[in-house]
Amino acid sequence: MTPEEFRQNGYALIDWIATYIEDIEQRPVSNPALQPGDVRRQLPAHPPSSPEPFSAVLADLDDIIAPGLTHWQHPSFFAYFPGNSSYPAILGELASAGLGVQGMSWVTSPACTEVETLMLDWMQELLGLPERFRSDSATGGGVIHGSASEATLAAILSARWRITGGDVNLDGDTTRLVAYTTAQAHSSIEKGLRIAGIGSEHMRIVAHDDTFAMRADELERMIAHDRERGLVPFFVCSSRGTTSSTAFDPSPEIGEICRRDGLWLHVDAAMSGIAALVPEYRWVNDGLELADSYCTNPHKWMGVNFDCDLFWTADRAALLGALSILPEYLRSKALESGAAIDYRDWQIPLGRRFRALKLWFTLRCDGVESVQAMIREHVRLTQQLAELVTTDDRFRIDAPHPLNLLCCSLVAGSGATDALIEAANNTGQALFTRTVLANSHGSTVSLRFSIGARLTTERHVLAGWQLLRSLVDLDLDLDRTPVGG
Amino acid sequence: MTPEEFRQNGYALIDWIATYIEDIEQRPVSNPALQPGDVRRQLPAHPPSSPEPFSAVLADLDDIIAPGLTHWQHPSFFAYFPGNSSYPAILGELASAGLGVQGMSWVTSPACTEVETLMLDWMQELLGLPERFRSDSATGGGVIHGSASEATLAAILSARWRITGGDVNLDGDTTRLVAYTTAQAHSSIEKGLRIAGIGSEHMRIVAHDDTFAMRADELERMIAHDRERGLVPFFVCSSRGTTSSTAFDPSPEIGEICRRDGLWLHVDAAMSGIAALVPEYRWVNDGLELADSYCTNPHKWMGVNFDCDLFWTADRAALLGALSILPEYLRSKALESGAAIDYRDWQIPLGRRFRALKLWFTLRCDGVESVQAMIREHVRLTQQLAELVTTDDRFRIDAPHPLNLLCCSLVAGSGATDALIEAANNTGQALFTRTVLANSHGSTVSLRFSIGARLTTERHVLAGWQLLRSLVDLDLDLDRTPVGG
Repeated sequence: MTPEEFRQNGYALIDWIATYIEDIEQRPVSNPALQPGDVRRQLPAHPPSSPEPFSAVLADLDDIIAPGLTHWQHPSFFAYFPGNSSYPAILGELASAGLGVQGMSWVTSPACTEVETLMLDWMQELLGLPERFRSDSATGGGVIHGSASEATLAAILSARWRITGGDVNLDGDTTRLVAYTTAQAHSSIEKGLRIAGIGSEHMRIVAHDDTFAMRADELERMIAHDRERGLVPFFVCSSRGTTSSTAFDPSPEIGEICRRDGLWLHVDAAMSGIAALVPEYRWVNDGLELADSYCTNPHKWMGVNFDCDLFWTADRAALLGALSILPEYLRSKALESGAAIDYRDWQIPLGRRFRALKLWFTLRCDGVESVQAMIREHVRLTQQLAELVTTDDRFRIDAPHPLNLLCCSLVAGSGATDALIEAANNTGQALFTRTVLANSHGSTVSLRFSIGARLTTERHVLAGWQLLRSLVDLDLDLDRTPVGG
Repeated sequence: MTPEEFRQNGYALIDWIATYIEDIEQRPVSNPALQPGDVRRQLPAHPPSSPEPFSAVLADLDDIIAPGLTHWQHPSFFAYFPGNSSYPAILGELASAGLGVQGMSWVTSPACTEVETLMLDWMQELLGLPERFRSDSATGGGVIHGSASEATLAAILSARWRITGGDVNLDGDTTRLVAYTTAQAHSSIEKGLRIAGIGSEHMRIVAHDDTFAMRADELERMIAHDRERGLVPFFVCSSRGTTSSTAFDPSPEIGEICRRDGLWLHVDAAMSGIAALVPEYRWVNDGLELADSYCTNPHKWMGVNFDCDLFWTADRAALLGALSILPEYLRSKALESGAAIDYRDWQIPLGRRFRALKLWFTLRCDGVESVQAMIREHVRLTQQLAELVTTDDRFRIDAPHPLNLLCCSLVAGSGATDALIEAANNTGQALFTRTVLANSHGSTVSLRFSIGARLTTERHVLAGWQLLRSLVDLDLDLDRTPVGG
């Protein structure tokens, strides 16, 4: 592709994307008829022997790729969690690709590191986070990770390093370490503990209350019990807004326990933490002044394209202790002077793109007020939806819904709820996912109605609710076996 | 930003990128005068209170960001390793951002998974890799990781899972496991072993020969010695093209040892493996038929923008055993039927972008022939450079240079070589990095002359060499202390 062709093809792709987003509502949210292999079958089994025009690629985007996608930007996408994007963020990603620089060390592209550090400090300010997370604080700092999974792993490794005084880097012995979280925490906690050689048997599932929040008294009891057995409690992951139901662990009380007992407290607010951009929702981050590390994802609810997870720590020495390795071919004067940040030592991989650009572009071009308005509207719509659900006695609400996720189910039971989700998704008019919620009232399959796409308005939420009601009116087969049951 | 503004701003950014790349040679490769903090100082300390026009962002790209970068796409960028890009790959990244879908599971966006699987199979064919790595093979398959560091970690975790029969996921005990590599291997091996709870003391540094390649007899001896001590040898990382000097471990012999002794063999060809796109360089992947896993990076030498590491395994059960966790909110029928690939179980993070698009766009729009031509030319230039260096008796060549990296130094010693690198980089006309090479002839600081940017031609290489010679003519201060010395 020549530079001139790049210009023409680039304009065409910009137009294609603009149209894709403007017209996205005309598409089904997902293609329920699609079976594994259906997309691949439409593409050549072998690579092309000679170059093709870009128009052929665009045609395939239209005819094969887009119909084979689940449209996360669709206003009736109520599944999983929001993965919303925005125009400035798309351009930020384009700029990053065009520059094609590596930000593994300060010296490999200084602006890549410095804009990132600045963005973390801007976000500390906008979210009202503790000053001790700032890059200019005595012991803290922040970094962009690809995902909350990586942030969680980085937190576990930092904790592991600190509790062993760094010995783990040498002898790797983790056999006495024990970590704590709840059954409602994200799957990345257990995955991270496995990766770090802690193992699932050394992950304690702390009981949760009927709101699906961790019971601090149980945490305290379990830590004491493990200590009596000669084990070494070292890490707690507290969720502020669980994936399953947006439950909020009591981080302030958990923080007190961790501080007293010398455990590392990681607070996972991947989804909900961004709500703190709105002053009245700052409570989502209560307790952070006692946390050792924290993460939240602009790529979920802030219109900054994936991947953009913000990870802060109040103890960067532990993070660097866990993750820094210095080969000869990466030595530099800037590094040895200690004046520069080398983000390769703050993350799992070595290489890194200029991800800060998309956050910078978004904050500058759209500003924080438009994000605040979007978050407020999503929360309002969720509360409005909850009121509607309450008026239909075939449904029940399964969990508190302080923000933008409503978990509800059919009183007819889990099989019926699973059947409803499947029937709704099969229409292509909306997309929902499920979870299982268990507390002292029992265990139930629950429909997750997650409201967070940038284009979602009241009309879409009401249509989604009407869709669910109309399907129940049709008298679903209520005797189905739940998925996985 | 409105859709119409996105179109106009998008065109402007496409133009900006085209001009950036077309005119990149007019810039210094890096800005040697830049000090830590210089970029940040030019930007507002606090986030903007109201939206700004995109033109302000573009102006800052021109005035602050670009002058603060190290230009990896510059034709006189001879530092680190190539991180080259191409026009179709830039557009692929843009398309991925515009679609904004998540590929963590097949069902979360089927085309995202299926195009990726197809690309891995296309690349298996183009690189001539063993059939057992194909997705339609009995036990193998491939995936795009963000970086070779993640691929290495995935390999270590797979090996750890297999040797413990999966027990490691539960009890985490890794205290008897031992891994093997050379001092020339990439830093991500040791980092991965630390992350996985193996620890540096359980990483054996196998002696290398005078070409910086692993000595298979030493590997065999060390494995036997560790077994005698009651330890459990489980993992070997063999480099095919080291970062430091492009050394090639004897993977066929290493493979025989691993197979006989039941160790997992990971072959790291992150930089050099792509050379196998050219038939006469297929030898770079010799021995792969005995490997359990393998990685190479289109984002280094193939014009596919970072991040695009291709990771294959012949034992996907071990990989999935190590990395899969299934929470209720991710269950699906497609998953339970076993027909679909869920790439979240093939990698460290949960979330993932549609990274396959940039590889697909590049293979279709530029074709493999243009990449073959580029690789051949870079190798030719490196061999031509080596001949020139041989004619100047103030220089010596420090390592074999079969591909696109020449390691050379001043006979005057390591301090002089460091001074030369610094002086050359201070001109901004070219950029080099250093390494330290130690074998039976001694230890030396070596200048790495890495030739791999897409725009690099004979003129740039000759100018780089002339720059080095002219600086030596100026009678450098030869008594400097080497960096880190």
